[in-house]
Amino acid sequence: MAAKPNQDEAFVTEITKQSIDFSKWYLDVVRKAELADYSPVKGFMVIRPYGYAIWEQIQQQLDQRFKATGHVNAYFPLLIPESLLLKEAQHVEGFAPQVAYVTHGGGEELEEKLVIRPTSETIFGVMYQKWIQSWRDLPVLINQWANVVRWEKVTRPFLRTTEFLWQEGHTAHETAEEAQEETLKILAIYKEFCENVLAMPVVDGQKSDSEKFAGASKTYSIEALMGDGRALQAGTSHNLGQNFAKAFEIQFQGRDKTLQHAWTTSWGVSTRLIGGVIMTHGDDSGLILPPAVAPYQVVIVPIPRGTWKETVLPKCEEIAAQLKAAGIRVKLDADESQTPGWKFSEYEMRGVPLRLEIGPKDIEKSSVFAARRDTRVKASIPMEGLTDAITALLADIQKSLLERARTFREEHTSNADSYDALKAAMEGRPGFVIAPWCEEAQCEADIKAETQATIRNIPFGYEQAPDKPCIKCGKPAKVSAWFAKAY
Amino acid sequence: MAAKPNQDEAFVTEITKQSIDFSKWYLDVVRKAELADYSPVKGFMVIRPYGYAIWEQIQQQLDQRFKATGHVNAYFPLLIPESLLLKEAQHVEGFAPQVAYVTHGGGEELEEKLVIRPTSETIFGVMYQKWIQSWRDLPVLINQWANVVRWEKVTRPFLRTTEFLWQEGHTAHETAEEAQEETLKILAIYKEFCENVLAMPVVDGQKSDSEKFAGASKTYSIEALMGDGRALQAGTSHNLGQNFAKAFEIQFQGRDKTLQHAWTTSWGVSTRLIGGVIMTHGDDSGLILPPAVAPYQVVIVPIPRGTWKETVLPKCEEIAAQLKAAGIRVKLDADESQTPGWKFSEYEMRGVPLRLEIGPKDIEKSSVFAARRDTRVKASIPMEGLTDAITALLADIQKSLLERARTFREEHTSNADSYDALKAAMEGRPGFVIAPWCEEAQCEADIKAETQATIRNIPFGYEQAPDKPCIKCGKPAKVSAWFAKAY
Repeated sequence: MAAKPNQDEAFVTEITKQSIDFSKWYLDVVRKAELADYSPVKGFMVIRPYGYAIWEQIQQQLDQRFKATGHVNAYFPLLIPESLLLKEAQHVEGFAPQVAYVTHGGGEELEEKLVIRPTSETIFGVMYQKWIQSWRDLPVLINQWANVVRWEKVTRPFLRTTEFLWQEGHTAHETAEEAQEETLKILAIYKEFCENVLAMPVVDGQKSDSEKFAGASKTYSIEALMGDGRALQAGTSHNLGQNFAKAFEIQFQGRDKTLQHAWTTSWGVSTRLIGGVIMTHGDDSGLILPPAVAPYQVVIVPIPRGTWKETVLPKCEEIAAQLKAAGIRVKLDADESQTPGWKFSEYEMRGVPLRLEIGPKDIEKSSVFAARRDTRVKASIPMEGLTDAITALLADIQKSLLERARTFREEHTSNADSYDALKAAMEGRPGFVIAPWCEEAQCEADIKAETQATIRNIPFGYEQAPDKPCIKCGKPAKVSAWFAKAY
Repeated sequence: MAAKPNQDEAFVTEITKQSIDFSKWYLDVVRKAELADYSPVKGFMVIRPYGYAIWEQIQQQLDQRFKATGHVNAYFPLLIPESLLLKEAQHVEGFAPQVAYVTHGGGEELEEKLVIRPTSETIFGVMYQKWIQSWRDLPVLINQWANVVRWEKVTRPFLRTTEFLWQEGHTAHETAEEAQEETLKILAIYKEFCENVLAMPVVDGQKSDSEKFAGASKTYSIEALMGDGRALQAGTSHNLGQNFAKAFEIQFQGRDKTLQHAWTTSWGVSTRLIGGVIMTHGDDSGLILPPAVAPYQVVIVPIPRGTWKETVLPKCEEIAAQLKAAGIRVKLDADESQTPGWKFSEYEMRGVPLRLEIGPKDIEKSSVFAARRDTRVKASIPMEGLTDAITALLADIQKSLLERARTFREEHTSNADSYDALKAAMEGRPGFVIAPWCEEAQCEADIKAETQATIRNIPFGYEQAPDKPCIKCGKPAKVSAWFAKAY
């Protein structure tokens, strides 16, 4: 289905090297691997089938985790009356500059302008006010998979687009403790998912006050480190305290018969995760996909020699069926209009974790030739016990990718005890820099203005006062903050 | 999680009888069963978790069918430049009155107004123009699951809402024959799905010219018959010919090296199907869900007598686990704040196909007491072989519901050889009326104006001239059209 180049431009050679221009490399991979394309509307992308298949894997596997922890899905309206957005003061201040307005519908000007949801705390708030009366109605644990729109000046496919797909959880609880427990439970699910499924290690911790979600009491985030040493906020979980409950009058009769405001949370991850996968694992040949999210985990390329159609092809079909039966996602590419060489570089570029090459000689030897995408290690594998061997190889690729990314992060995480050290570390491919901070917004803002580094979060275990001065103002530090240049 | 009534209003008694007011019965069921709720934005509904769980079943099972026939999913932008909508003359004429306009974003007035997609032929057209160059790129078989907005004056949850969820397939082909084959293949998938999963029999056939999709060459539909004798268009599949390919310049180099326009199709079903399920199967006690789409297929209600917590409850948990292991969706409701009687009517109202009641006596007899929602037949089932027995019972409920709906449709389908007969048949709960028609739009329009009956479609097998006069004008009829009052 993909638009195929002519034979005379058969090899994919146009990906910019990471070392030359990481940003251009990223855009080349997105385009060449047919993950996404630009649309006629500025800032809006089309997620192409190969990119969307990764999103489907993310959706399914996250959704399982949400449901296993008692959450249910629902669907709330796309359009929100402007008046609702205005109800929570912090919230409107954060989102008003980014919203898109619908002013006309059905040939008439609307009485009240509607905004396309930039996030849905407000419309959930209205409904929760209606649905929640008693402590017996709590907790309410609802998630939705939806599109949201935030008008952005500078966009980049998956990382920052005016419209994006995400899930947004909105929960209401009886007590402050339960809301905090939920907030951290979700953060832990995000971390586990990123590490075990996306093979993308993340640092989990609390955001500084200035980086909090508009309207939250506390925001927690997971932060990943990309191949260029920049951080990517990969997911956030907010304890909203009673802020939204008070703005939207979400009240319930407590066990003691008094009327109380609920405690709410919200949390989300988006198609941005696909950008994270690309930039965590990719190399100069293109995409490298962890098997757990790869649309195809294995590609089988028959070598068309001699009587291959009678010998090789049926065997390839048999192996494909056998692997599928074991739950492995397989593509058999027997297209005769492309050479094996073209296919090898095409599927490398598309990041397929494992390639099997099968020719007449392999049939004679009763083996297949396997090439790993991550290490490029190639080996002959006996047909006997092939499914088990491939299952094991895929598990090893998944594990190795996570280890490699962890090692990269460790190599790109350093400590800075002085402002000069921080500034020096922010040159080149900086990574995370851990530095003592006084928790004053002014120091944080000055550092950002001067170095572009922002506090990604204060990871769990780093909230204690480090017995060192703040790198900016020299006053006693209260925490060790993790700084980075971020997407 | 559901808002529970107090004990003193413990029984759900507020559903209007179908025979008194079918329309009010429908709204009562939607509200009481917590399928959907009104939102603060007129015409927009919130799909609540229980309703959304039905949609998730529909999505999963349809998506499997699309993928099994070679389709892939993608995601296209929500907003479409107004200029694109104007490219296909028929299309804009059909949709322009219904679109919502986005005029401002990011604090500024937009240079070109954007419309919220009412459907996505135009934006798919732009991208297909870009992606398709050669006959080798064809067919392109893309589907998307998305929200769309069509400004509606009169709305009803699930059946007609300003925003709704749907899937829209958009395919491009090398030849007219292949496009027609695809159009009918999808129609057949819709029919099979409606009958086997939703237990909702449908009539498949071609729409009259005046009921065609705006911009289509041919539109096919599946039409179901609701409990009040009105028809529901449950899905449509359009052969777009080269209309959109010409408007959007979707051209490819053919096998003969000439430049040709592609042949395209589009097709969709929506959350409207949930309305169809409600009105096909429901009764005066509420919802009746076919097992294949029921969020819970079985509810287990322990009878809290004597030492039930030590005897009955562990057994209920064991049975629930055993049924879950067999892939059956089960809910165990051991909530002590509600009586078994309250639960019985609550789950009946919510349409759970099978209820198991288990008390101390059942434990003694090593059996459970099972109540079918569809027939209300109750029986004791031995614990020994319980999973198999329940699997068989669920299959029987699924089959019986389809048969019952087929019988109802047969009883409400009649032939009319004269206009008077048609008019008479359209009184009360009319159902389908088959009548000879000359294929003139004027006759069709006059009949609609005078009787509210529209031609739902010309089913396959009814396209031959019936050797009778058109019931309206008396000229020779060309087909036997199926008329009904429709939602």
